[in-house]
Formats: sequence, structure tokens, C-alpha cells
Amino acid sequence: MSSNSFGKLLTVTTFGESHGPAIGCVVDGCPPGLAIAPEDFRADLDRRATGKSRHTSQRREADEVEILSGVFEGRTTGTPIALLIRNTDQRSKDYAEIAERFRPGHADYTYWQKYGLRDPRGGGRSSARETTMRVAAGVIAKRWLAEKSGITVRGYLAALGPHQPRTFDWAAVEENPFFWPDAAMVAELESFMDKLRKSGDSIGARVTVVADNVPPGWGEPIYGKLDGELAAALMSINAVKGVEIGDGFAAVEQRGSEHRDEMTPEGFLSNHAGGILGGISTGQAVIASIVLKPTSSILIPGRSVNVRGEPVEVVTKGRHDPCVGIRATPIAEAMMALVLMDQALRHRAQCGDVGEILPKIPGKTVK
Amino acid sequence: MSSNSFGKLLTVTTFGESHGPAIGCVVDGCPPGLAIAPEDFRADLDRRATGKSRHTSQRREADEVEILSGVFEGRTTGTPIALLIRNTDQRSKDYAEIAERFRPGHADYTYWQKYGLRDPRGGGRSSARETTMRVAAGVIAKRWLAEKSGITVRGYLAALGPHQPRTFDWAAVEENPFFWPDAAMVAELESFMDKLRKSGDSIGARVTVVADNVPPGWGEPIYGKLDGELAAALMSINAVKGVEIGDGFAAVEQRGSEHRDEMTPEGFLSNHAGGILGGISTGQAVIASIVLKPTSSILIPGRSVNVRGEPVEVVTKGRHDPCVGIRATPIAEAMMALVLMDQALRHRAQCGDVGEILPKIPGKTVK
Amino acid sequence: MSSNSFGKLLTVTTFGESHGPAIGCVVDGCPPGLAIAPEDFRADLDRRATGKSRHTSQRREADEVEILSGVFEGRTTGTPIALLIRNTDQRSKDYAEIAERFRPGHADYTYWQKYGLRDPRGGGRSSARETTMRVAAGVIAKRWLAEKSGITVRGYLAALGPHQPRTFDWAAVEENPFFWPDAAMVAELESFMDKLRKSGDSIGARVTVVADNVPPGWGEPIYGKLDGELAAALMSINAVKGVEIGDGFAAVEQRGSEHRDEMTPEGFLSNHAGGILGGISTGQAVIASIVLKPTSSILIPGRSVNVRGEPVEVVTKGRHDPCVGIRATPIAEAMMALVLMDQALRHRAQCGDVGEILPKIPGKTVK
Amino acid sequence: MSSNSFGKLLTVTTFGESHGPAIGCVVDGCPPGLAIAPEDFRADLDRRATGKSRHTSQRREADEVEILSGVFEGRTTGTPIALLIRNTDQRSKDYAEIAERFRPGHADYTYWQKYGLRDPRGGGRSSARETTMRVAAGVIAKRWLAEKSGITVRGYLAALGPHQPRTFDWAAVEENPFFWPDAAMVAELESFMDKLRKSGDSIGARVTVVADNVPPGWGEPIYGKLDGELAAALMSINAVKGVEIGDGFAAVEQRGSEHRDEMTPEGFLSNHAGGILGGISTGQAVIASIVLKPTSSILIPGRSVNVRGEPVEVVTKGRHDPCVGIRATPIAEAMMALVLMDQALRHRAQCGDVGEILPKIPGKTVK
Repeated sequence: MSSNSFGKLLTVTTFGESHGPAIGCVVDGCPPGLAIAPEDFRADLDRRATGKSRHTSQRREADEVEILSGVFEGRTTGTPIALLIRNTDQRSKDYAEIAERFRPGHADYTYWQKYGLRDPRGGGRSSARETTMRVAAGVIAKRWLAEKSGITVRGYLAALGPHQPRTFDWAAVEENPFFWPDAAMVAELESFMDKLRKSGDSIGARVTVVADNVPPGWGEPIYGKLDGELAAALMSINAVKGVEIGDGFAAVEQRGSEHRDEMTPEGFLSNHAGGILGGISTGQAVIASIVLKPTSSILIPGRSVNVRGEPVEVVTKGRHDPCVGIRATPIAEAMMALVLMDQALRHRAQCGDVGEILPKIPGKTVK
Repeated sequence: MSSNSFGKLLTVTTFGESHGPAIGCVVDGCPPGLAIAPEDFRADLDRRATGKSRHTSQRREADEVEILSGVFEGRTTGTPIALLIRNTDQRSKDYAEIAERFRPGHADYTYWQKYGLRDPRGGGRSSARETTMRVAAGVIAKRWLAEKSGITVRGYLAALGPHQPRTFDWAAVEENPFFWPDAAMVAELESFMDKLRKSGDSIGARVTVVADNVPPGWGEPIYGKLDGELAAALMSINAVKGVEIGDGFAAVEQRGSEHRDEMTPEGFLSNHAGGILGGISTGQAVIASIVLKPTSSILIPGRSVNVRGEPVEVVTKGRHDPCVGIRATPIAEAMMALVLMDQALRHRAQCGDVGEILPKIPGKTVK
Repeated sequence: MSSNSFGKLLTVTTFGESHGPAIGCVVDGCPPGLAIAPEDFRADLDRRATGKSRHTSQRREADEVEILSGVFEGRTTGTPIALLIRNTDQRSKDYAEIAERFRPGHADYTYWQKYGLRDPRGGGRSSARETTMRVAAGVIAKRWLAEKSGITVRGYLAALGPHQPRTFDWAAVEENPFFWPDAAMVAELESFMDKLRKSGDSIGARVTVVADNVPPGWGEPIYGKLDGELAAALMSINAVKGVEIGDGFAAVEQRGSEHRDEMTPEGFLSNHAGGILGGISTGQAVIASIVLKPTSSILIPGRSVNVRGEPVEVVTKGRHDPCVGIRATPIAEAMMALVLMDQALRHRAQCGDVGEILPKIPGKTVK
Repeated sequence: MSSNSFGKLLTVTTFGESHGPAIGCVVDGCPPGLAIAPEDFRADLDRRATGKSRHTSQRREADEVEILSGVFEGRTTGTPIALLIRNTDQRSKDYAEIAERFRPGHADYTYWQKYGLRDPRGGGRSSARETTMRVAAGVIAKRWLAEKSGITVRGYLAALGPHQPRTFDWAAVEENPFFWPDAAMVAELESFMDKLRKSGDSIGARVTVVADNVPPGWGEPIYGKLDGELAAALMSINAVKGVEIGDGFAAVEQRGSEHRDEMTPEGFLSNHAGGILGGISTGQAVIASIVLKPTSSILIPGRSVNVRGEPVEVVTKGRHDPCVGIRATPIAEAMMALVLMDQALRHRAQCGDVGEILPKIPGKTVK
């Protein structure tokens, strides 16, 4: 089954293992004429990169993107865009021990059960290294969305373990290593993370992504709903265990009179729906949140079994990223951008003839 | 775009509007030889049916399933199975008023923006009536999963507004109109719902679905992960605003040493992961939860606009279902069953040769 | 595997067996706003219908199309269009004999080998009855193509066994039961067919389909080429054993200087390519031809085996259509129309922004 | 639209332009455990390579395949297999002239009309260079088919312009540069080709591909028929203008009593059907033929237009391959192998439970 591809009209196929020769992707379906250059991938790859700060793990790779195809004289041609990053940090040391035992909370055991064999080096295909190519592909989608529709896709860390922002400022988000919207809390978070690292443990997180200026009408009922596809896209990110649209699980205790977003000619009066009704964008900001589980790669020994079913103890050595949720921020942005661009193309395919005869209601500015 | 189909190897295509002549589906890819008869659909359709109790809305339809194809002498033949239900409750009364105004919190406005026109009768395609066919298709999947792998897929209401079960008993779930696992609380819920109905308002809910006996190895990295596909399937249900796998959003505040499910030769010691690691089933129970928003079809007037952009007031008359989350339970079961059967076939396609040489670790009995 | 669906953006899913309760299809992805009514299907279904003349077989069905969904007040809404035809001619007589033996040249043996069981009544799913729904779906595509781009899709019989037209006149095609473009030969063909029927044998045929006014640029390299998709679509018609684009197999003996279609500002000077270069339409007429094998349903006994592997003799009784190729003409038109509409939507999705800045070279009028 | 991918369960995505940095492919869905090494691609790539003899064009590339992912310790892991070939022969000379004019019979004009721009260097994406990766992917499919089912896929040149083999010997095919099954005719062909090259013209060809030992039951009705998918796969090869299964267009003049392949317990008595009935393999050899048009890259000047619509004269300089059909032989084999492996996986998915209770009739040995 071709499950290394994502999207219907804008299709991203990724390949590569954590410690193989390279990782890469093929982006198929991008309209022709979009300006794109190797250096355009730099910013978001840096934002995602491990090694960005002492609060994320220490793998340092150049992550230089090579454009192998689909771009001629600086513009996309409509043919598939292949991107490649060589793995420079292939520590091909002995992996015999890890090859024989299943780290609890990791995909080691399930890959083994599925395939009967696996590439154990650095997690192989199940490593978060794969998300590098999502971010790269997302750069193309972000650019197209911005040029065609003025859409911006931005994310932030909405919770770091028990900590939540007390104020909100988009400007702060890119100014600290936590993508945190409350600058005053950064020192507090650093202290928390330092203690956590020393303890050898890890912590969960919540990331929220917001797309502004999405026009109404994107998304396809019934099984290609914008929220359904966002859910699939975001849940496919390593360590994600939940996805919310708009108010999400808070709606369990809400009343209908509270949740429904009333409309006036001047605009929506609220955005509990997260910009999506019936699977289709409303014209308000599209808002999704995810939870990232605390990574199982911790220094605290855990019980497990080996390939022969014998009990073993497992300890993760070396790199240790106490909160993988932090760098999920640009990954989540990329996935939302890819979903939106795909839906934009799908909408154009079926409804390209529908005139702009309808009054568009202004969306409520969110945060 | 063909977004009325769901699944890759077991594909369900649904069609029909709430007040059109009929609703139906085509189930393609079912293996041959499965026994299936029209009466097999009865139980789950009744569980989903509106009008089951005074706590759900009053539409009463026979919902008799006709098998149009794909079954010969009581067994599936491997050709597409078409199921049809005639809409007997097509109140073709005047819908001029509703056709002109957009109910807040509904898909009226977004369909209008997308297509430039819509079928306003009863919500047309965006009505939850469509989910009837999901339940019907799910019956086939449930049966196949049970026969081939002994899998059961069961759901329950995990929260009704502010109420949560204080005890848990699967046996209780089917004995009350709320799919509630705590029999002692039923009277309390009935009282709550009666008051809510009188107030003309609605309430949100949480539904949890559990699949037992799923073998390890099902699910496809990277973009066809079992959890990713569950997320898409569940989020596509009307009114769902969030999906969790296992502990879900509770993991935000968990530590890695707490969340990771340790393994011993005697079995897993916990199931925070909800039976899925790296997108692949672990052999433990697969557990997913969803939030259903409070329906916007309430008796309390709300502000909105009409097709000319003028301000209007909207009140839902007639049927009023104060908690649509209740009957989402069998729908969620159906979606999980369809996802699992699809993944089973996909696993067999790629890994049908992988021998059963691996020790399977017993899953922890969940609840 | 969902192989009862066809098309990517305009997707047609068909279902139903020859002698089951009904046949039907779901057309998904049609843009909103297209006028369509049940009576619009009449003309093409009649053209395809068995029983049209004494030269095709004698099954007589009303073939009344019911529109179950996707149309509101006479216009498509953008939701799936379900079409249904009840099988009124279900002779449910004893089929025990045919159920046990495999007719040579039919799908009896291969369905048995694939599925381990089959619906033997009238060929079940493998019957050409299924093509009724292709024609119905094709009506929608033809209408959309005509309205949006002025495209016409027309077919004719290009060979009936050893007979080939000596002159060509589109006007003649619809005036005789053979879709034959040379009116002067009709008596000759009738005589040929009468003798053939008396002999109990059957004959092959060639059908050519032409789409005029297809704009340049439709078709997707590399694996979604217009000619590749036409080949798949046409080869999937019952009894087809070959597909040609433009000059087809005649190109084996052609020279490059002869085959290439030179261009001048006044237009192409020839159309050997059949309107497609590099998998993309040139703006000239798109031309495809197919061969229909002589049906194996003949009165002359043939050797075969039964389900126990024992030798048996098989004779087809009752209906006998000595040249199934004749009524393949509207089916082939439908498939070409569906492919073109699908490609039109796909082109719009990716290249909807490409301006009309390019000089279009006039196509050569073909025949 | 993701039209650079091919196959449903075994999916091949190719990328790259003729004179870009590299070409490559991603093969997704291959079962785990298959032994594969870089040197395994050598033989078929050499068979396809331009520059193999003086009768094919002179581009000489090492065509060294690098395996970027999906293989660990010499075996496939079930994750996507990425293959890369660097283009060493990127003559980046001035292409201004060719960029402005459309070669007749080429995809220059249609790409321009579709995308509004194109990569003119060596034909860009429309170059037959792309087929290198099909051959590479086909190597994996051939190997899997051979290991699992003992299937061989072999092709030969069935006509070179007016020349047809007078005798048939598989052993001869690989012993001459024409894939010609009649050794005695090779000198004749060489003489023909030498004259043709001197004339500056080109010639068409016919290629036949045969798969032996395909088990009965592969192929999916209705729109995933084995013959339908072969037609799509083969028609997508550059320069192909027609596809035949079994007797193909010869069936136009055949009678049913002649064409139907009678069966006896000892086996089929003929194979006019080319091993496929109702879209499903019969257990006989699967046989398909294609026509390759004479290439338009010839030294004889031709009339055309430029990007401004002005009349120009076009002459192909440099490399000149007077019969591109010759090296289409391994490409066609690869496409058939990929289709068969995809169908094998699809069959296993749906019908993996169908027991081998049926008597299989021996296929007729073909040629």
C-alpha cells in the first residue's frame, strides 16, 4: 500500500531512514510558475532542527536541501519536485544491542510484528527524522498559499507539561526556543526543562496551529472534510496522540447556545468551530491543536522484551530530547499548509466555476 | 474529487440527501464468502436510530436496508455490495425560509460558499442522516473482523456534558438509552436531559470506542497510520471536533516514565498508547475517543445572515436532539470497524508472507 | 481493492449484477449547477440498448434511470449523483446447469478461480449489463463537456468483421442500426449479419470514437496521460482486446517524416497522433479505436470443463448477439467523455492559473 | 494531481528531467524480506540503455543506481525504496533555440499549452530518460514475481517497420541488439537500419511481452482489470500508440467459434485471449503487444511554429535513434511486471482466504 504518500492533488511522498544514506520527498501536483530555490527551505528546517537550543536534542546536521527536479530557472514547471537531504550524521556504530530489544513506547515492537524485520539504526523509518521532509514540502505549500490567497500558517506551543501561556503575543513566538507566545514565562520554562533533563525524564506538550485568510468553501464533504484531513495529517506526526479543531474537547461541556458561532453582516461573533463547519472552511481562521506525548527515549530504565520474548531492561543513551513537542510546531504548520493547498486545488477542480457572487462574512480575528 | 468514498482496500462510497428519495452506499473490496443478510443491519441501525428514546430526536424511519448487489445466495461474491434505504420521511413542505437563511453552527453557509447552491431540505447532504450508511457498512466490517480475528468493536458514552461515569461496566452500556457504562447514573442523566430539552438548548458529549483482539502489526507508516486513519474517520462524523488515541490530551502533562507502556513476557503493563505505536497496532486494545459538539439545532434564537447578507434571526423548529453525541456511539464503532478491516486487508497485501514467528505479548485487558 | 470505481476527480462507481435486483452508479465530483433530468439518459441508453434492432440481442428492459441523489431542483449540487436502474428482466429460472460449467471465452472460469464462488445468473457482474451505467454516467460527462468547452464525443463502427466503410458521413451513423458511416453499405451488412446469425456464430468489430473541440493541455504526464487513461477506460469495456490512438498499429510501418504532424500558424497539417502528444491534448480531434472480440456466446457447441474439472460441452441458448461490437459504440463514447471530463477537472486543479497567452494552433478537421 | 505515480498497492513514483541533476523513483509497498542490491539493476538498465549498439542513440551514461532507502542489510524492509541515478550527461549548452520552437510530433507544444512554461533541455520531463526508472522499478517486480510465483516476464521485437520474424526462438532474443527472435534475419535488419539512419528518417516497431506462469485469478473487475491496467501502463510508455491483448486487432475479423479458447481437463486448446478473460488471468501466458511510433527526432527538416506562433523549420541535430521501439522492449517488460506484482498484492488483499480448491487447467505453452 502506498502509505508514504500524503494528499490527493498535491501529493507528497517521503522516503528515507534516520541513518540511511539520505531522506527525501517528491512533491507532485504543484502548479507551474511558483518561484522556489534551495535556500527557501532554510528557515523552517532550522526552526525544526534538532540542536537548535539546549532544550532539544543534539543531532546537528546541515540539512542542505537539494532540488533534484521540477524546477527550471527558479520556477516550478508542473512536474514532480524531488527534494533530497543527505544524512551526514550516520553513526554507523554497533547497533546490535538495540536491534535485539524493543524500546517501550517506541515503534520497535510494532515494526517487528508487522514486517518481521526492521532497520534498527536510530529508529529507521519510524524516526522523527522523516518529518524534516514534511517541513521541506510544507515550505512550498506555505509559499503557494501566501502568494495565491494571502494565507499565513503559524504555530505556537500552547502547553509545555503543566505550563500554559498567561498572555498571547504572536511576536514573542519566534523570539524564544519554545515557540512560546508569552515572553515573560521563558525563564520559567528554561528552569523547568533543565530540571527535567537532569531527572532523565520527558514531558508532553500541546501545539496550536492557526491559518489566517483561508477563504470560505475549502474542504470536501463527506470523507474529505477539511477537519478530517487535518486530523489525519496532524495525527500522523510522530508522538501525536490527539487532535482538536477549534474548541475541541472543551465542547464536551459546552451548550449549543454557547458553541454555535453566530453571524452578522459585520462578521462572525466567535470562532468556537475553529473555522470549519460541515467540513468546509468558513472564512474564519482555521485552528487546530495537537498533543505530543512525552517521548519514551528517556534515561530512566524501563522493562521490555527482546526479539526472543525474553525480559530485558532498556535505557536510552546519548541524545535525549525532553520535550519533542517543541519542535513539532513547524511540522504541524507544514502539515496544515499541505492540507490547505491540497484542498485549494481540489476546490478549484470542482468549483472553479462558482462565481464570487456570495457575500463573504468577515472572520473574527483570533488571538 | 471523489470525497464521498472512504477506505483504500475496503472502500465505502455513500450517497444521498436527508430528504432526497434515498440514501445508500457501495461497499467495495469485501472478500468473498462472508454471510450477510438484510436483517443483519437491523440491530446497529436501531442503535443509531433517531427516535430510539425520548432523549434523541423524533424522526421515525423504517430504515429497511435493501441489498442491491454483491451478495448471492446469502454470501458476498467479491463484487461491490450496494445498500439502499428509501427515505420514507421526506416532508416536502415548504423550505423556502430555511433555504434563504444560514443556520449558525451548521454547514448551510459553507455549502453555499463552496457550491453556490445547496439542497436545503433537512440539511441535504450535510445531515447526519448520511451516517446511517456508515453504520450499515460498519456492520459488514464488524462481522468480517469478528469472523477472521475475533475482534469486537464496542463504544460507550464517556461524558454527557459535565457528567462522567463513576463506574464502568460493559454490560450496562446496551441497557440504557445513553450507552452509559454506569447503570446507577441513568436516572440522573434522564433528569439532566429533560431539563436541557425544556431549556431549548443542547450539550456536548464524549464517546469512546474500543476494539479488542486486534492483532499486532496493523497500520501503515507513515501517512496510513492506524491512528491517522482513525482520526480522519472519526473526525469526519458530523459534530466531531476532536479525536484522542489512548490517553490523548492527558499526555500533555504526563512524563515519559509514566506514559510509556512497559512490556514483560507476560504482557504490557499499561495501555496509555491506546494500542498503537508508530501508527501500528501493538496487540493491545485499540482505544479512541471523540468529542461531539452540542448541536446548533436549538430552540433558542440566534443571529445570522441570509443569502443576501442581511441580518436575520434563526430558530430551529420541530425535531430537537439535545445531545447528538449519544447516537454517535454506533457511528464511531462503525468507523473504527471500517478502518480496521481496511488496514487488515492492507496488511495482508504487503505482509501476508511474514510468518508468525514472533512472540506476541499479551495486551492488557482494558476496562 | 476498490476497482469498481473509475476516474480521479470525476469518479464513477458502478454496482450490480446482470440478474440482481438493480444496477446503479455513483458519480462523484461533478461540479454544481449542471442541469440534468431523468429523461436526459434516454437517448444514449436507447442507443446502447439490446433489442434495438434484430441485429442485437433481444433483452428488452425499460432501463428507466432514477436519480437518487445529487440533483436538486433540476441541477447538480456538487454532492454524489446516484443513478439506479431496476432489473425488470430477472429471469430467475434454474441456473444450476450454467452454475456448474464454465463457458469458454467467458469470465466464468476466471471469476471462479479468483473468488471461489460466483453469481452465475446471466454472467453476474461480468455481464455487459454493467456498461449501461457507464453510458448513463457518460451522459453527464458529455453534457458538461458540451456546455463548458463545446466538445462533442461521437463514435461509429469502423469495421464489422471483414467489412469497412467505403465512404464516411457522420450524418449516416445515427441513421442505421450499425452506427455505420456509409449508408450505401447497410443492406450489405444486414445480409451479412443475417447469415451469421443463422450460422450460430459471431464476429468481431472495430469502433472509433472522436472528440472534437478538446482544448490543448488536457492530460497529465507521466502516468495520467490522456492516452494512457483512454487506453485503460476503453480496454475495460467487455470484449475489448485492443486500443489505438490516432494511427495506432499502422505506425509500425510508418516513417517519422510521415507520422509527425507538422504545424503551421494556420494549423496542424495532419493528425496521425490522434490529438495527443506526450500524453497531452494538442487541440486537434482526439481519436481512439478499439477492437471488440467476437462474443463467445454462440450456438455452436464448445468444449470446456465444469467446476469439478470434468470435460463438458457448452452451448449458449436463448439470446444471441452476433456482434457485440455494434452497441459498444455509445459505451466507448461514454468512456471517452468520462476520461475527458476527469482530465478537464484535473487540468483546472493544477493549471487553472495558466493564462491563455499562448497561440492555439487550429486542429485539422478530421473526417 | 499525482500523476507521476503508478500502481495501487505497489506504487512507483518517478521524478526527474532528462538534463536535470538526477532522475529517481520511489517504490512503495514492496513486501519486506526481498533481497535486492545495487548491482541487480545493471542487466536491465544495460538492455534499455541508449548506446547499446550503433542502432540506438549515442547517449552514454553510467546509470549507476543508488539505493537511498528501504533496504537494510541487503533486504527490503517494507518501507519505501528510493532509487537515484545522477545525470552525468547534462550537456548544459545553449538551449535557447530549442526553447523557443516546438518540435513537431513531440510534447514541446503540449507542455507549453498545459503549463505555460517548460524545461526544454533534452525534452525535460517528457524525455524517454524517465523510463530508466521504470526499468529499475521493474527489476524489483520481476524478482518478486519470480521468487513468489515462478513468473518470468520477457519481451521481444515483433516487427521492425515492415519486417516481421519468420521464426521464433526465445534464445535468440537476447543475442542480438534488436531483441529479435529470428537470428537469421539480424543481418537484414542491420542493413535496413543503416540505410534508414543515413536517410535521416525513423521507423515504427511492434513489441510483444509475455508473462509465463501467472496464476489464474489476478486482475480486478471492473475498472482494475488486468488488461485495462496493462493498457494504461503500456500506453504510458513514450511513443506508444496502441496496445493489444492476445490476438488484439486481429479479432476484428475473427469468428466466435475461432476466437474462444476451448478448455479440456488437459488444458486450454488455444490462447487467443492472451491469458485474460473478464479482466482476470486465466493461468495461461499473459500476452500484450504495443506499437511504437517512429520518433519525430529526425534529421529531415519539418515545419512548425515557435512560442510566438510564427512559422519555423525544425531539424533535430545530434543524437538520432532511428527506431526507439527497439529499446522499448525492457521498458514494456518492466511495466508488465509492475502491473502483475500490483495485481498479485491486490488479489492477496481481497482473496487471500480463497482456498486452492479449484482445479487449475494447464495453460497452453505459447510460442
